[in-house]
Amino acid sequence: MPKAWLLPEHTADVLPDQASDVESLRRSAIDAAAGYGYRPVMPPLVEHIESLLTGGGAELDLRTVKVVDQISGRTLGVRADMTPQAARIDAHLLNRQGPVRLCYCGPVLHARPRELGASRDPLQFGAELYGHTGLEADLEVVQLALDIVQLADVGPVGIDLNDVRVVSALVGSQPLRASVQADLVAALTAKDRAAVTAAASGLDADCASALRSLVDLYGPAREVLDAAVRCLPQQGPVVQALQDLQWLVGHLEALHPGLDIGVDLASIQGFGYYTGVGFALYAPGHGEALMRGGRYDDIGAVFGRRRPAVGFSVDLKAVAALRTPPAAPRAILAPWGESAALREAVRGLRAAGEQVVVLLPGQQAHLGEIAHDRRLVEVDGRWQVQAVDLAAQTA
Amino acid sequence: MPKAWLLPEHTADVLPDQASDVESLRRSAIDAAAGYGYRPVMPPLVEHIESLLTGGGAELDLRTVKVVDQISGRTLGVRADMTPQAARIDAHLLNRQGPVRLCYCGPVLHARPRELGASRDPLQFGAELYGHTGLEADLEVVQLALDIVQLADVGPVGIDLNDVRVVSALVGSQPLRASVQADLVAALTAKDRAAVTAAASGLDADCASALRSLVDLYGPAREVLDAAVRCLPQQGPVVQALQDLQWLVGHLEALHPGLDIGVDLASIQGFGYYTGVGFALYAPGHGEALMRGGRYDDIGAVFGRRRPAVGFSVDLKAVAALRTPPAAPRAILAPWGESAALREAVRGLRAAGEQVVVLLPGQQAHLGEIAHDRRLVEVDGRWQVQAVDLAAQTA
Repeated sequence: MPKAWLLPEHTADVLPDQASDVESLRRSAIDAAAGYGYRPVMPPLVEHIESLLTGGGAELDLRTVKVVDQISGRTLGVRADMTPQAARIDAHLLNRQGPVRLCYCGPVLHARPRELGASRDPLQFGAELYGHTGLEADLEVVQLALDIVQLADVGPVGIDLNDVRVVSALVGSQPLRASVQADLVAALTAKDRAAVTAAASGLDADCASALRSLVDLYGPAREVLDAAVRCLPQQGPVVQALQDLQWLVGHLEALHPGLDIGVDLASIQGFGYYTGVGFALYAPGHGEALMRGGRYDDIGAVFGRRRPAVGFSVDLKAVAALRTPPAAPRAILAPWGESAALREAVRGLRAAGEQVVVLLPGQQAHLGEIAHDRRLVEVDGRWQVQAVDLAAQTA
Repeated sequence: MPKAWLLPEHTADVLPDQASDVESLRRSAIDAAAGYGYRPVMPPLVEHIESLLTGGGAELDLRTVKVVDQISGRTLGVRADMTPQAARIDAHLLNRQGPVRLCYCGPVLHARPRELGASRDPLQFGAELYGHTGLEADLEVVQLALDIVQLADVGPVGIDLNDVRVVSALVGSQPLRASVQADLVAALTAKDRAAVTAAASGLDADCASALRSLVDLYGPAREVLDAAVRCLPQQGPVVQALQDLQWLVGHLEALHPGLDIGVDLASIQGFGYYTGVGFALYAPGHGEALMRGGRYDDIGAVFGRRRPAVGFSVDLKAVAALRTPPAAPRAILAPWGESAALREAVRGLRAAGEQVVVLLPGQQAHLGEIAHDRRLVEVDGRWQVQAVDLAAQTA
């Protein structure tokens, strides 16, 4: 039998120092979202599969672990993404007419890692703004995402913007077979000009040429948008998308001077899911996007209400992995005893936010295993906290 | 097709007011545990089934949802209990010689509800103390559990103590078939004297008589312990268990004057799992135990290290359901605008912990959907927070 302590591939325990850090990231993300008016929801770990896969398409389906419900016999999915769950809550349970702001944080499960080196067991934090079609909503969500990643202090972040409407408009009314669309998305994502040419071989020449030009349309936001205006056909939806990106870039420049803002028009991850501007935040030394988000209107349709929506999500464990976990807090050691005065002293220190580890009888031999810098000692009948000579301790 | 918004039976969404409350319970439990030196760990949502079921027996097996790992082809379980995961981390990853204190908080999944009306999707918080066999460790864990439930403020709690060693000692060396043991556990748990007689029919007469007397040994701690000394055979392990219970009761009386302390010697939930004193905390108006815990030594054996262990766990969603969720925080409404002064004012208020909801263009019509009591308004070129006339608002 394999060793019982081996974990499934692409899953890992988060040990105390790192887990404390994830917990503090979790709290700062939830609190930052609360400051903008995003209120928490906790959907269940499993749902009927048809509820979980709304809008997510084949990719989400493949990533979702299915089980048969022992009670109903129906197929349940273990959530691989909490976004459809939040959309269900907005559409069906809250039933508001105006904008609704929700956030959530919990583990999700992926049948296979989403990308090379990714975990199958991320801790997903996300925030969603429903019920507003304006760019002001997109901007608010980007700002919140930036606030959270800046609180995480993982170095200077950069943002890449994109808009799936550009590709949609270029392909236009030409019907695409699913396989052609998949090839096109893969070719554009890989920025592989030859593959784009091959995938677009059935499309008309102007369209194929425009799709090829997307491969070069990435880099600093202003330059890319200027180039796009020059080289893309000025169809209505393309013009609209470029104007929207201009608007967002302008506001982000004003709000975050010094932020590295890029545009990548060939980036169409989530094609068929997003319906407008999309964004990805990058941290130095981490090739994959740290956070992804964007607009995905109509997500609530399957729940009976079409609602505009814009949001983002992030794996907080992946963010924590980029940080140096703070040193473990140093405890105050207290002796075990039945004295009421001692117990009151311990209680008071804990209530004041101190970590007080009581030395259980016999634990003396393993003191070195407890990170501590103070002790609670009795002096003249009163319990006092005294510093421990750390140099002597390590010697 | 069934409605997409229907959830699987015995699962539920936690909506914003309640979710905020669960979040605050979660933080207070983690912080209380940190005060005692319990450090957080985050094990994965799924593990190989043989790791997850250690010590839990058939009941945990039936409660665990299994899936086939698409990568390895092995059977994984979605955790139904995080206790074995924490034991694995203590035994294999931390590898300390002295006591180790760990806590955890995360969703678990049950194939079927554990008891009538229970959720299949609890949010399990737990704390575990490894590596110490003394009653001081049991007492510390009970104290932490009491602290957490008292912080939750669900009314005066009561505690019931038990000890599986009493039944084990009475049955003694007489080999029990698994089905007889199961019948006996069920009969004692139900306090059904006739069923105990039937289940014990194969045992010797003294033993059967002692087992029957357990049915009446529940109630106020001192009375029950005195009665037990009189009517139970004074075998070594029985005497030891009763002395341990006396010790704990004495300390709990000193530490928590006024606490309702009971002993229930027929309560042997977790028989075959617990190895010493067990406890359950009860809240008024809630028939099922709110928290359960106890000593379960040797849990780490399958991971290569036998370690004494004592701990407890609780479903924080169930605790929150007993509380009146606090009223939603009232926000400050701010207009949308591009002015740097406005944006700076909003940023400052959020940094100070305020909830500032920006009114997106067009949102004016649905103001009543946002709980607010103040507005950010420009007066003489400066942005100020002004109270909103709530009477006028509701009118």
